[in-house]
Amino acid sequence: MSNIGKNVTIAATARIGENVTLRDGVIIEDHVVVGDNCYIDYNTIIKENVTLGANSFVGANSILGEFLQDFFDGNVNKKHPLTIGEHALIRSGAIIYGDTEIGPYFQAGHRVTIREKTHMGEHVILGTLSDVQGDCQIGNYVHMHSNVHIGMKATLKDFVWIYPYVVLTNDPTPPSETLDGVTVEKFAVVCTGTVVLPGLHIGQDALIGAGTTLTKDVPDMTIMVGNPGRPVGNVTKIRNDKGEQVYPWRYSFKRGMPWKDSDYDHYIAEQK
Amino acid sequence: MSNIGKNVTIAATARIGENVTLRDGVIIEDHVVVGDNCYIDYNTIIKENVTLGANSFVGANSILGEFLQDFFDGNVNKKHPLTIGEHALIRSGAIIYGDTEIGPYFQAGHRVTIREKTHMGEHVILGTLSDVQGDCQIGNYVHMHSNVHIGMKATLKDFVWIYPYVVLTNDPTPPSETLDGVTVEKFAVVCTGTVVLPGLHIGQDALIGAGTTLTKDVPDMTIMVGNPGRPVGNVTKIRNDKGEQVYPWRYSFKRGMPWKDSDYDHYIAEQK
Amino acid sequence: MSNIGKNVTIAATARIGENVTLRDGVIIEDHVVVGDNCYIDYNTIIKENVTLGANSFVGANSILGEFLQDFFDGNVNKKHPLTIGEHALIRSGAIIYGDTEIGPYFQAGHRVTIREKTHMGEHVILGTLSDVQGDCQIGNYVHMHSNVHIGMKATLKDFVWIYPYVVLTNDPTPPSETLDGVTVEKFAVVCTGTVVLPGLHIGQDALIGAGTTLTKDVPDMTIMVGNPGRPVGNVTKIRNDKGEQVYPWRYSFKRGMPWKDSDYDHYIAEQK
Repeated sequence: MSNIGKNVTIAATARIGENVTLRDGVIIEDHVVVGDNCYIDYNTIIKENVTLGANSFVGANSILGEFLQDFFDGNVNKKHPLTIGEHALIRSGAIIYGDTEIGPYFQAGHRVTIREKTHMGEHVILGTLSDVQGDCQIGNYVHMHSNVHIGMKATLKDFVWIYPYVVLTNDPTPPSETLDGVTVEKFAVVCTGTVVLPGLHIGQDALIGAGTTLTKDVPDMTIMVGNPGRPVGNVTKIRNDKGEQVYPWRYSFKRGMPWKDSDYDHYIAEQK
Repeated sequence: MSNIGKNVTIAATARIGENVTLRDGVIIEDHVVVGDNCYIDYNTIIKENVTLGANSFVGANSILGEFLQDFFDGNVNKKHPLTIGEHALIRSGAIIYGDTEIGPYFQAGHRVTIREKTHMGEHVILGTLSDVQGDCQIGNYVHMHSNVHIGMKATLKDFVWIYPYVVLTNDPTPPSETLDGVTVEKFAVVCTGTVVLPGLHIGQDALIGAGTTLTKDVPDMTIMVGNPGRPVGNVTKIRNDKGEQVYPWRYSFKRGMPWKDSDYDHYIAEQK
Repeated sequence: MSNIGKNVTIAATARIGENVTLRDGVIIEDHVVVGDNCYIDYNTIIKENVTLGANSFVGANSILGEFLQDFFDGNVNKKHPLTIGEHALIRSGAIIYGDTEIGPYFQAGHRVTIREKTHMGEHVILGTLSDVQGDCQIGNYVHMHSNVHIGMKATLKDFVWIYPYVVLTNDPTPPSETLDGVTVEKFAVVCTGTVVLPGLHIGQDALIGAGTTLTKDVPDMTIMVGNPGRPVGNVTKIRNDKGEQVYPWRYSFKRGMPWKDSDYDHYIAEQK
């Protein structure tokens, strides 16, 4: 039993779960699967071969399963599945391509763009207007804030934080045919307005300060700031306004993390 | 007498004023009030508890009264009123949340985002793709150009100018639970591409040059430039291409200002 | 014979070519011309006086022929034609104004904005979220990547490359009434995150490195980097990872260029 609005179109081969809400103007194309308890807001378009996990929300005016480049060869949509895990919360205006897999508990702000061949783990957050350009490997619990640009071939490991207006580039001598993606290791933090040059490696627990133009690899635990970015010390030296050590942040920050009910050490101990 | 297009949905409890145009596909939910002489373009969605002042325009594909986070607790829209003053000009693609008040003569470019608990005065301008993250206090005659990011807890006093790709941040040791908003005093100007670090205070009549990474408070009347931003003099020393002093700008610039028909000194004298 | 979806509106004076696909919810207003073999995806709105060349694609939720400022004088759409050449590929979410001409083989990413009085040559590419503010002259084979901001009065000559998060400004003493656009000469490359100050001239074959705040004119063939941008040599000194000279790039890069099947020298010889 579902709740279907006005002017909703559901293709014959689509499968809609129990207790699904489809608001007015929603379009569901062929071979789409919508899990139980999903809520799809006004005018959202789910193109062919999209699988949306149970208990998910998709905001108004979104497009899931957007055409890849090969559509334009004859205006025929080829088979490029998009799979989104359970408990997704995708706010209005999203555009997400086929040939992409997104794990459970994904959260997106408004008007995100995610292109093809992107793999995201679980509990990933992607902020308003952010653009994942495709062919990207994104781990678990990665937080990308508003208006970030994740260039093709980027790799973000688990628990990475990317703040607003960060751009990860990939072409060392633009324009060229080379795509040299950026790699960010676990727990690293890249602050607002940083531009990361192609192919760079940002080490575990590193902290890149706001407004940095990063031109060199970053060792683990290292703070980089400036234009060009220069190392200015170890992250352990940073104190908050109470004088407490705050990095590596996994020992002082819990919200939304798998150790939110205990602490990082207990979480790791339990994983073993 | 109003002009209602095709496939328009108007909830029973909505109140639509005189001489209103609702183009095709517009959706008006419960407890919405649309003032006289408003024009709502194609497919715009006005969710519950939105009040739109008379003589306003809302461009196509907009969403007013977007869901707050508490919607996702049971997929039920709680009561979060959005009030927009008279003579608003909101271009297409806007997303504006509930629990927000916007004064009269608001103007927005395309695809703006304004989140909850934002208070804006009158004659505010917000450019294309700009994102006001919520819990922000914005005065009168504030101009925010295209693609600015106003972080939570920011305070912008009257007559402030924020230029494209400026980001006002708020987390001093990201990720943390602290939100330390930026304050910008009256008449200050923050130029293109500037990143302002958390909790900073920008003084009255200050001028932050393009591309600055601002890491320190800025005294009144002071020019700051560079990465990190450094003071380079008093704004009174700046001359335009005719050799005229141009700052504080309120003595040389009138367009759109309340003193547009006389000058700033007369305006102030009349206010008293 | 065309393929018309559900709830499509076509004004009486519109002319729709042969073999056109209009998906559900498309709106075509008066005096619109859609060339043969075009494909217009769901819910796209084509306002009055738009001419779309044959063999073009327009993605879902786009708005072509968006209102200019003079609409708001009485909510009446004045005549401001938009002409888009053949073989356009405009991805979903575009907003393009009237009084604009775009040459053939235009390609756009998602949610681009192009304002009035823009002239673009042929084979122009404009990436996702990019914003051309209007009154801009853009040559042939100009590539503007994602999230660029082309300020009013900018001039981009043929074969220019503009990378993500570049902003071309225009007001030398903001706020003022002066609009002093940036000029970029042929073959110049402006890399990611660069802010270009008003009225600057970037010479032919110049290369502006990522993260530069450009405050001075750039001679031909010159590399500029830093904040403020400083000259650091001639582009001919740059080598790729194979040790090859890569600039001027027209001798080493062919994809999408008119010399893609031979080389630049042969192309020039044939032009004569």
